[in-house]
Amino acid sequence: MSKTSKIMPLSGFPEWLPDQRMVEQQLLDRVRRLAELYGFVPLETRAVEPLSHLTHQGETSKEIYTIRRLHDDGAASDELGLHFDLTVPLARYVREFRGKLRFPFKRYQIQKVWRGERPQEGRYREFYQADLDVVGEGTLPLHFDAELPALMHELLGAFPVPRATVLVNNRRILDGFGRGLGRDDTADVVRALDKLDKVGISGVRELLTDSVGLPAAEAEAWLGLAAIRGPGTGFVDEVGALGVKHELLSEGLDELATVMAASSDLPPGSVLADLHIARGLDYYTGTIYESVIEGHDDLGSVCSGGRYDDLASGDAGDLPGVGISVGVSRLLGRFLGDGLVRASRETPTCVLVALVSEETRARSAAIARSLRSRGIAAEAFHEPLRFGKQIRHADRRGIPFVWFPAMERGEQDTVRDIRSGEQVPAQAHAWNPPEADLYPRLLTS
Amino acid sequence: MSKTSKIMPLSGFPEWLPDQRMVEQQLLDRVRRLAELYGFVPLETRAVEPLSHLTHQGETSKEIYTIRRLHDDGAASDELGLHFDLTVPLARYVREFRGKLRFPFKRYQIQKVWRGERPQEGRYREFYQADLDVVGEGTLPLHFDAELPALMHELLGAFPVPRATVLVNNRRILDGFGRGLGRDDTADVVRALDKLDKVGISGVRELLTDSVGLPAAEAEAWLGLAAIRGPGTGFVDEVGALGVKHELLSEGLDELATVMAASSDLPPGSVLADLHIARGLDYYTGTIYESVIEGHDDLGSVCSGGRYDDLASGDAGDLPGVGISVGVSRLLGRFLGDGLVRASRETPTCVLVALVSEETRARSAAIARSLRSRGIAAEAFHEPLRFGKQIRHADRRGIPFVWFPAMERGEQDTVRDIRSGEQVPAQAHAWNPPEADLYPRLLTS
Repeated sequence: MSKTSKIMPLSGFPEWLPDQRMVEQQLLDRVRRLAELYGFVPLETRAVEPLSHLTHQGETSKEIYTIRRLHDDGAASDELGLHFDLTVPLARYVREFRGKLRFPFKRYQIQKVWRGERPQEGRYREFYQADLDVVGEGTLPLHFDAELPALMHELLGAFPVPRATVLVNNRRILDGFGRGLGRDDTADVVRALDKLDKVGISGVRELLTDSVGLPAAEAEAWLGLAAIRGPGTGFVDEVGALGVKHELLSEGLDELATVMAASSDLPPGSVLADLHIARGLDYYTGTIYESVIEGHDDLGSVCSGGRYDDLASGDAGDLPGVGISVGVSRLLGRFLGDGLVRASRETPTCVLVALVSEETRARSAAIARSLRSRGIAAEAFHEPLRFGKQIRHADRRGIPFVWFPAMERGEQDTVRDIRSGEQVPAQAHAWNPPEADLYPRLLTS
Repeated sequence: MSKTSKIMPLSGFPEWLPDQRMVEQQLLDRVRRLAELYGFVPLETRAVEPLSHLTHQGETSKEIYTIRRLHDDGAASDELGLHFDLTVPLARYVREFRGKLRFPFKRYQIQKVWRGERPQEGRYREFYQADLDVVGEGTLPLHFDAELPALMHELLGAFPVPRATVLVNNRRILDGFGRGLGRDDTADVVRALDKLDKVGISGVRELLTDSVGLPAAEAEAWLGLAAIRGPGTGFVDEVGALGVKHELLSEGLDELATVMAASSDLPPGSVLADLHIARGLDYYTGTIYESVIEGHDDLGSVCSGGRYDDLASGDAGDLPGVGISVGVSRLLGRFLGDGLVRASRETPTCVLVALVSEETRARSAAIARSLRSRGIAAEAFHEPLRFGKQIRHADRRGIPFVWFPAMERGEQDTVRDIRSGEQVPAQAHAWNPPEADLYPRLLTS
């Protein structure tokens, strides 16, 4: 049906081969499993939102894809766009379904999002995000902020990464520190601090003095704050030593100390307080999360988030939230690109049932059916080729076992592990593969 | 962030509550599981295709959503559209990745598709389809046609439906029957026969004589063919009794007989040969599948498909295919709408760990963590409210167990089944819920 049109990959719209898709599926399964173990309920929202919702934050509007019916009459009043993240849809969803949800509303959501990025930047235009958020009605206890670093630690551990660190800060510390220094608007300062990893201390110093225009002493105070990074709650005293005082600063320090204390049972170094991280987005109001993966710093923070006290509002009051987002496709693209992870075979099939002859097709089908009924993925070969060819078919796909139906009355079926060549008598209603061969596994290297 | 904009549901874009989403997820899991047991590999294609691919079949072009970057400069040369099914993307994918795929290529694909239907028709504009196809390189043995009815039977059985019947026909029978009657183009006739369920025998007779313009005797011959429906291969003799002969007809009868014979081990009535079904789409060239669900005839065929000898072509020859598609959202919408299926609880959480006091927060968190480490979904309550209130929180969500940490040294933790009220001593590292409570189940009524 597509003889006439030329096939071209679309820049920014990655597609995987089936064995790569198996890797993606298993990683998404792990995220789902972990979210559910923590009691997050599943949610999926439609792919589209009214354009007015999507463009409410001016900054991101340039990346939106709008959709339109091909034979639209032109009088389209309600323009729609594809969602570019899962936070805007969540904010809309909790307002729309507020009366039917239970609060605190803990939901996870794993979906594709779309951004009209310029392809030359090498970014994805379609990719998976996995978001976990808790939304409160009116208020949302700090308890939920405190739970997230452990969850982030487990989430990152679910990916085949060498070693990941969760970084936590609190916007109130940054804002309160500014107020303590007599500065009400810290936006420019925070933006400069956020560049620490890129431009280093001297670069930030230059930004603070030359671009932001701070006096040298104030710049040094900020650099002192930004340099604080460590496990546990030691940061409280370190900030105290800088001599800046403000009520908002104290609040922020208390909150961050509570969050850090809740992570004290995790392996040392898993979670660090890091007072320079800020997240660019304006809507974070308290706790902020980022993460770094050893050896993949260039990926940036693939798991980040924070507290937003004004996620959504309505006639019935505010809906504050705290949550994180994992850039699954970005991680996966790196893993697959670097060959860091692969599936143990190319197909779910565990057993290929050989076809002896046209006359015994029903027998081979019955064996495959019997194996499947016990949860063993099995398919009967489609042609009565020489066994060598049937075995090669299995071998190419990494199917570990080939089943040979008995050819004469009184004989027994046999099953061969084509890796070892070992072939043993077996009955389809009773034989089991080793647990490790039942389903394709993820192999890391 | 969305204070200013009004919230309105979008017609045709269904969204579920979390407990309904759990039902959807579990049904999709079953489809995936079954597809993998049969050895289909997973595939996911990008949501967009070049418009030229999508509009290649003129008939469907009116339903396409096109996408465009919001701040496009207007010089968009490669217009893109959202896929409206999973067959067109498959045809493109197998051509694009042909050199990297193994043939016969058995793939399943579960994704949302989008159609710009008029909302007043009450149809979905965004919905899940689950497709399973086998694509051959050059040729594709009838073996794969013959496997599908059993798979369709199992697939439909995976949904909470009363009783489903798979119907099978072959386009060569219809075309060959026509040629035997001296008629080369059977399109109009087939379209009339396809209306049998809607307008009845007398209605079809009228269509054949008045609209198509057949002589009365020929119309009766077609009605005789269309009335043939039954298990096994009895249809071969029944068609023979109609006295029409053609080589193509014989080929079609042989193929259908092979397909029906492969389903002979299924429960009686699961798969019927039904010689009137045709599927409207032109690209089917051989076997055709449909299905009916008892008590839900009005849904139409929610699982259908067939053989298309020209799924995709390229410089290296043809890529014939055979496959089926399940309208998951249509089924789910009916089940949820009629209250035929629901989740046994509203959340994955199996155990709510009570919070005794602010001071023992770490203890509650440790219990929840210990349970989770053994695969038991658990969350610690966020506030040290009266136990009655914490139990009510669990009760409302259907969480079956509440865990009470020991309040004094030397005491033991206890866990209460809040349905029976039974409360027993327990240790977080050893206690297990009954298997049936571990994960939300689907309940049918």
